[in-house]
Amino acid sequence: MTGDHLAFGADRLVVMAGPCAVETREQLLSTAHAVAAAGAALLRGGAYKPRTSPDSFQGLGPAGLELLAEASAATGLPVVTEVLDPRDVERVAASAAMLQVGSRNMQNFPLLREVGRVDRPVLLKRGAAATIDELLHAADYILREGNQRVVLCERGVRAFDPATRYLLDLAAVPVLKSRSDLPVVVDPSHGTGRRDCVVPMARAAVAAGADGLLIEVHPAPHEALCDGPQALLPEDFSALMRDIDTLAGMLGRRVVRPGSRSSATAP
Amino acid sequence: MTGDHLAFGADRLVVMAGPCAVETREQLLSTAHAVAAAGAALLRGGAYKPRTSPDSFQGLGPAGLELLAEASAATGLPVVTEVLDPRDVERVAASAAMLQVGSRNMQNFPLLREVGRVDRPVLLKRGAAATIDELLHAADYILREGNQRVVLCERGVRAFDPATRYLLDLAAVPVLKSRSDLPVVVDPSHGTGRRDCVVPMARAAVAAGADGLLIEVHPAPHEALCDGPQALLPEDFSALMRDIDTLAGMLGRRVVRPGSRSSATAP
Amino acid sequence: MTGDHLAFGADRLVVMAGPCAVETREQLLSTAHAVAAAGAALLRGGAYKPRTSPDSFQGLGPAGLELLAEASAATGLPVVTEVLDPRDVERVAASAAMLQVGSRNMQNFPLLREVGRVDRPVLLKRGAAATIDELLHAADYILREGNQRVVLCERGVRAFDPATRYLLDLAAVPVLKSRSDLPVVVDPSHGTGRRDCVVPMARAAVAAGADGLLIEVHPAPHEALCDGPQALLPEDFSALMRDIDTLAGMLGRRVVRPGSRSSATAP
Amino acid sequence: MTGDHLAFGADRLVVMAGPCAVETREQLLSTAHAVAAAGAALLRGGAYKPRTSPDSFQGLGPAGLELLAEASAATGLPVVTEVLDPRDVERVAASAAMLQVGSRNMQNFPLLREVGRVDRPVLLKRGAAATIDELLHAADYILREGNQRVVLCERGVRAFDPATRYLLDLAAVPVLKSRSDLPVVVDPSHGTGRRDCVVPMARAAVAAGADGLLIEVHPAPHEALCDGPQALLPEDFSALMRDIDTLAGMLGRRVVRPGSRSSATAP
Repeated sequence: MTGDHLAFGADRLVVMAGPCAVETREQLLSTAHAVAAAGAALLRGGAYKPRTSPDSFQGLGPAGLELLAEASAATGLPVVTEVLDPRDVERVAASAAMLQVGSRNMQNFPLLREVGRVDRPVLLKRGAAATIDELLHAADYILREGNQRVVLCERGVRAFDPATRYLLDLAAVPVLKSRSDLPVVVDPSHGTGRRDCVVPMARAAVAAGADGLLIEVHPAPHEALCDGPQALLPEDFSALMRDIDTLAGMLGRRVVRPGSRSSATAP
Repeated sequence: MTGDHLAFGADRLVVMAGPCAVETREQLLSTAHAVAAAGAALLRGGAYKPRTSPDSFQGLGPAGLELLAEASAATGLPVVTEVLDPRDVERVAASAAMLQVGSRNMQNFPLLREVGRVDRPVLLKRGAAATIDELLHAADYILREGNQRVVLCERGVRAFDPATRYLLDLAAVPVLKSRSDLPVVVDPSHGTGRRDCVVPMARAAVAAGADGLLIEVHPAPHEALCDGPQALLPEDFSALMRDIDTLAGMLGRRVVRPGSRSSATAP
Repeated sequence: MTGDHLAFGADRLVVMAGPCAVETREQLLSTAHAVAAAGAALLRGGAYKPRTSPDSFQGLGPAGLELLAEASAATGLPVVTEVLDPRDVERVAASAAMLQVGSRNMQNFPLLREVGRVDRPVLLKRGAAATIDELLHAADYILREGNQRVVLCERGVRAFDPATRYLLDLAAVPVLKSRSDLPVVVDPSHGTGRRDCVVPMARAAVAAGADGLLIEVHPAPHEALCDGPQALLPEDFSALMRDIDTLAGMLGRRVVRPGSRSSATAP
Repeated sequence: MTGDHLAFGADRLVVMAGPCAVETREQLLSTAHAVAAAGAALLRGGAYKPRTSPDSFQGLGPAGLELLAEASAATGLPVVTEVLDPRDVERVAASAAMLQVGSRNMQNFPLLREVGRVDRPVLLKRGAAATIDELLHAADYILREGNQRVVLCERGVRAFDPATRYLLDLAAVPVLKSRSDLPVVVDPSHGTGRRDCVVPMARAAVAAGADGLLIEVHPAPHEALCDGPQALLPEDFSALMRDIDTLAGMLGRRVVRPGSRSSATAP
């Protein structure tokens, strides 16, 4: 079944959703069930969190990975989660169907080489000041090691207007597609940092031709240990999934569903 | 009839299209007929062109205004055109249904005051390094003079990646709508500078909630005196209009058509 | 005598100082005497102020020009002041020895053409998102009209770190000098927006090869109607002038003094 | 002896110089002797190179470390070199007196923690899109592990003007000093990417209050495997050192010399 969910590209639209960070068993399981019910194809959630300050919550680490594995088993959703340290790649790959390399690590070359050597698709997020060129070269580090399942992710670049946390560069979608065959997904949650921008920008990403979305969902955003202001409530995520379904249909795409079957191979 | 075309906001979607610059009578009329046939609501085209270098084509000036008036009469499309100099506002207002203040002039306060005193809606483009806050304050300069018909335009901000000419900030659409009741339109032609990005970003703008689009169309982009690389061919614009129609319908909007009637008042 | 002060270039270092805005007769005269005593070559001060919001103090206009003329007569310092509107160029030129085109107007081409036609040197400030190329092309608009006395001013570009108001690009000094013979001055007051950065960056600008400085000085910065947080107190400006003197000497330059005589022609 | 060279702060000015990458024994030794003769306090040179593309020269690795150790022994200059991988920290610390964390790794938190646990001062370069705040928080990750010898390095941020490779933010020097007691050095070579900007910006950095400089020197820049366009020739570096000496004297600082003795403790 996992194969379906991780089958990016062609006419498929893959929605990955879940909390920014794994905080508690209850928080993760309730979110996982909610996003599964709403039609997400993968569960996202961080066990290792790269945080600006060492005083911020750094994630649950191995205990978080265990919770992710439990949530995956309970919902049938494969898990995508971030790996920060080249020494953790194997351990994270044991619990997750897909590995995320975060924007701060887009040019962490030892990490890129390490994820290039495991049998897991890799979600590679664009650095906050990285050009399209640099993102594609970073992907080359992974591809060069033998792992061909790289999914590129636009998640906003650094800019001057404090109105949004980052500036989501949706034109990166057609530009990347003109230069590479790798699937391209968009993260409107980090890309704007504002809950009220997530739905419009998720729609816009699909309209721009994205192959998938990465959406943060939290049952109680105001209590979140990380990035609460950008998390959707489960019910808002459900409504978004209905919009995305219609929009995808109009554009000749179909949203990959947990129960759906397909002969496609990933990505 | 003009009223209909200039009725921005609510469920209406207003598409303004035409060449970057008025070059010749033939170029303008053929483009005007093409965009009218494809369903544009306004004809755009510059008679006064703000160009980085004094050696570049600066527009036809008054002769360009006359050609715009002729094209408007021939097609029934009202005209939106840029005014650069506070001393030209009256003259331009005599030929155009809507005045454009370009991004380089977003904080040209004497010009803003002058367009605030004429009976024409104003298309105010965001400066390439302007925050949302600054754009709204610039609009205040116009509103303060009595002219309430201001339409805000996102057209890309300056950023670091040469892959696109500017970085189109589509999140500006929901952010502006959370802070103002003014209509918001998007210019994906200047906002990306790449023909292959115009269609995806036009769709994305509509999906993000924009009230209109500003699209450059040229019958022979490679011969254009200004911004050829970002101009659509008339047939590509026609195809885009069909997409936009479907997308607008899905989002509960309708594209304002030249022949359509409505009781709405502008904007 | 004015000729000396406006003699930019070669081994001369020209310091222009004064308040951001002309507020009152007393404020202007006391500042003018203080900066003259400290060794400034020109008095700066705005009568027409380009402000982000129409609710902010917009300057005293013609009354401000009169006060500037009075302060110039009282101190012997020629005045540099900003002109915003092409229709005001003649009037401002009647009161000021040098005209400033502000960063918001760097690509206000009608204004550039107008200041290109008067017999006054022009201080052209780089736009907050303008490339070096665009600054040089903007200067071309002035030069093309016949006015060869253009002085370029680096005053910070827009960037992502709120720690400073703008990002002062001192490398622009050597880059501009490699591409043009026009004098280059630096404005560390607007370029950082922080009083505690003005002195270090003024020194750095001289060390980088700048031909002059533009420094904001106010007798009571916390009461300033405009940009108080970046204004130096007169005594801090005096101390800075002593530093600059030593630094200039070390670099083979000499600070142009009000009473000094020179055979040089401006700029 | 090493202690002297690594004694940053107070009235000392520490110049680190050498090639971008260790390429050959001959290249490294000739450069090392040249920079030692000119008065550099440390030899810089990369054995592990973070390169945008996997096709670019990646450094000599362990063989490069051996050459650095040899050059250090031959010249008496301690070595500062970059470490990319947390698994290499011990190995690099065995050959180098000071460890560099490059700008791409400023938020590579596992690496920061690892260099926080060794007995070597750490040169932490600001990320190309990092705020001052984020740089200080990154330093916290190192300090938190027990290593108090952190030296901050401004090396240019990403900006929009292709005239320079990065935009060197010299105001970061006074801003960092207002917020931290850690020494601050500047890298005008990476910070501009242009040989003709290195000397002016090195002087400017000292004038702005920097505690040191990081300068790339190569005996044949046009043959360099990495960043040739920004490398100084040895003779140009010698001339720069004479300038810096004079400038430092004027500012009440003294350049730390290989043969000098001091009771100071690092940093």
